[in-house]
Amino acid sequence: MSSGGAGSNGRAAALSARGSRIAGGARGLLDKGFDLYIADPFDRDRNPRGILNLGTSENKLCYDLIQERLTRPDMNYLAPHLLQYSDTQGIESFREEIAKFLTEYAKAPKALNPEHIVVMSGCCAVFATLSTVLCDPGDGYLIPTPYYGGINSKTWLYGGIQPVHVPLFSEVTDEESHPFQLTVEKLETALQRAKEQGIRVRALILINPHNPLGDIYPAQLLKECLEFAHRYQLHVIIDEIYMLSVYDDTTFTSVLSLDCLPDPERTHFMWGFSKDFGMCGIRVGVLYTRSHEIRKAVNKLAVFHGCPGPVQYVLSQFLSDRDWLDNVYFPTNKKRLREAQNILVDGLTEIGIPVLKSSGGLYVWADFRKFLKSQTFEAEMELWWKFLDKKLLISPGKAFCCYEPGWFRMVFSDSVDKIYLGKLGVTFYHKIICMF
Amino acid sequence: MSSGGAGSNGRAAALSARGSRIAGGARGLLDKGFDLYIADPFDRDRNPRGILNLGTSENKLCYDLIQERLTRPDMNYLAPHLLQYSDTQGIESFREEIAKFLTEYAKAPKALNPEHIVVMSGCCAVFATLSTVLCDPGDGYLIPTPYYGGINSKTWLYGGIQPVHVPLFSEVTDEESHPFQLTVEKLETALQRAKEQGIRVRALILINPHNPLGDIYPAQLLKECLEFAHRYQLHVIIDEIYMLSVYDDTTFTSVLSLDCLPDPERTHFMWGFSKDFGMCGIRVGVLYTRSHEIRKAVNKLAVFHGCPGPVQYVLSQFLSDRDWLDNVYFPTNKKRLREAQNILVDGLTEIGIPVLKSSGGLYVWADFRKFLKSQTFEAEMELWWKFLDKKLLISPGKAFCCYEPGWFRMVFSDSVDKIYLGKLGVTFYHKIICMF
Repeated sequence: MSSGGAGSNGRAAALSARGSRIAGGARGLLDKGFDLYIADPFDRDRNPRGILNLGTSENKLCYDLIQERLTRPDMNYLAPHLLQYSDTQGIESFREEIAKFLTEYAKAPKALNPEHIVVMSGCCAVFATLSTVLCDPGDGYLIPTPYYGGINSKTWLYGGIQPVHVPLFSEVTDEESHPFQLTVEKLETALQRAKEQGIRVRALILINPHNPLGDIYPAQLLKECLEFAHRYQLHVIIDEIYMLSVYDDTTFTSVLSLDCLPDPERTHFMWGFSKDFGMCGIRVGVLYTRSHEIRKAVNKLAVFHGCPGPVQYVLSQFLSDRDWLDNVYFPTNKKRLREAQNILVDGLTEIGIPVLKSSGGLYVWADFRKFLKSQTFEAEMELWWKFLDKKLLISPGKAFCCYEPGWFRMVFSDSVDKIYLGKLGVTFYHKIICMF
Repeated sequence: MSSGGAGSNGRAAALSARGSRIAGGARGLLDKGFDLYIADPFDRDRNPRGILNLGTSENKLCYDLIQERLTRPDMNYLAPHLLQYSDTQGIESFREEIAKFLTEYAKAPKALNPEHIVVMSGCCAVFATLSTVLCDPGDGYLIPTPYYGGINSKTWLYGGIQPVHVPLFSEVTDEESHPFQLTVEKLETALQRAKEQGIRVRALILINPHNPLGDIYPAQLLKECLEFAHRYQLHVIIDEIYMLSVYDDTTFTSVLSLDCLPDPERTHFMWGFSKDFGMCGIRVGVLYTRSHEIRKAVNKLAVFHGCPGPVQYVLSQFLSDRDWLDNVYFPTNKKRLREAQNILVDGLTEIGIPVLKSSGGLYVWADFRKFLKSQTFEAEMELWWKFLDKKLLISPGKAFCCYEPGWFRMVFSDSVDKIYLGKLGVTFYHKIICMF
């Protein structure tokens, strides 16, 4: 007897149709690049000829500070309740601390409610749970393009939902003030096109500060986007994972700071410890949503994405130390981000590579178009491989679904050590560019 | 314009059809009981009239030991790589430590391969990912009944798959040696019935040591079940989360200890730190599976269920201290489990409540049938509520999908303090029983 529906080979028999779809999903270019790096990582002492990683968005500039803070005596505490089952939404005292922290740092007009928070094992889990409960398989979400391409798999693997691109271009038209500018008209156009294709659009995803552009949505545009979404009963998922990694004097407007939201029940905010605190390995993401029904649904899934009690305790202590955050961590981090960004941008400018003005995030969006053999994505990939041959990992625009070949994202926060290496890196690129 | 498919009320508009299904899923009886307990927990000093929890399967007998071990200096280490992105399958050194540990304690005939391990945020996540990649929505899995009812939501919320019961009964027939005995014939019958109902059965789930029966599958029966599954190309998921919580001298046979598996590619083992180390709050579950394709699929999902780097480090240290495990922790834990079990069983026996012979797990399966007003599940619930009125939380058989009303699971490992309270508890039951 066959178990039914299974093919003749072992693979089909072992996995379900859904499992085969999941296993067979192509790995993104960013993953491929990371794999190559992991197999041969640069280390000044142990592997000086290894791959220099300016591709992965990690902030390694302040490990000295973080490490010092996390190993102080107040962190060494292990009450039995931290090892026991607890609220799957997140331990209440941790949610209270996060609510206070976000109220202050996102400049909320009134105190955020800890009951509106769900804590999960990373922002990937926030994307997975939200897309599962807000959308049905086959539904779509609008997303301005280029965008962080990892969102594709995060919304697709469990959620089975698909991006509907809102293509942005570098050329600045008469109505626009800067490259890759988002407007509500572009959202409208993309939505109508999706409708014509029979795609039910359920949500709009915005990343602010933007990844990979490194710019920040002006308050006015943010409000227009929220009103647009409200008109069409779309959910808005705002990913503010780089919220506190703003290194110039541009005013950052968190969605949590707005006095009045057009559709509070459909506006969902996410943030985590990965980027602003350089803790990608700590796996803690935060969802803030006012909708009781949505929290109820997400909480049912949260049991699969739990954070360890001791980690919740340590991060509570960490967030509550405002003296250290305000006087040590944030000023130093901002200063180091700015310095690192300057070194990279100056180096690139020197060799004739234009870079978009960036205000936040850990990367710049650099224009290598004039170095392409032809204005195609094949030529972009060829350039990417040339960089890799020279042991330099950066991220091609294709990984961000960019519509124009020749743009690359370059991360400048790989380590204090690498600020110096950023300079070396520029020499690398120079060499490469001389090859053409 | 409507976003399509949304009803007129806010709830339908906010959630997708799938989201409504997830939010609307009834909470299990075990969850309801836990909620009541959390609102009014017994505490000898602060809340002596609160609810005594003999319902939640947590081992609190050895916190003193665990706490002392986890706060030693060797745990206080925070290398930068622990805070960075790492292998989503689990940090390699942690997987190596787990492989060594399981090889030894599950008595594997040859060293287990760390590459066959996936580490996730708890065994709930292991169930969710496995059911998602092995089954399609609507598929079924065989499970001997009574069984830990939490498996229903764990396999259904993401996986959308359903249990196919293999009903077991307390009456011992001529061919059987003990109550609730599983036989391959019963598996066959259940499988055929499912086929007739048009359910595609993809897997068999076994819990060993059993929850709630507290018994252990003899090696011979385990092999017969594996052969049965192989005949029908079923996956076997063996949940051995109580593997090291065996407190009598019965020989426990882990599936990892078998020399030769009928279908190694379809045999999947899971274990975690929750029960055997009393760390339900640490959220670390382990999958061991030999199938490359299945690991590939599970790993795609593992990004949503990650464990913090520092926790992986601490648990590596913990597992590697064999001297402490062998000479301090395991002997003490076994001794305390046995003592706690004895106190409860003796107390119950004294007042005429039969208990099945148990060898493992943190609970006994007790027969309250003669105290039911009628042999119905309504009467079982009535008795459950009477216990709760008397501030005693235990778990009714219905929560385990038992086919005979009147059985209850009683946990004996709530704390060293509660061993004493176990005695008090027995007095409680006595009082209650006198009420009938």
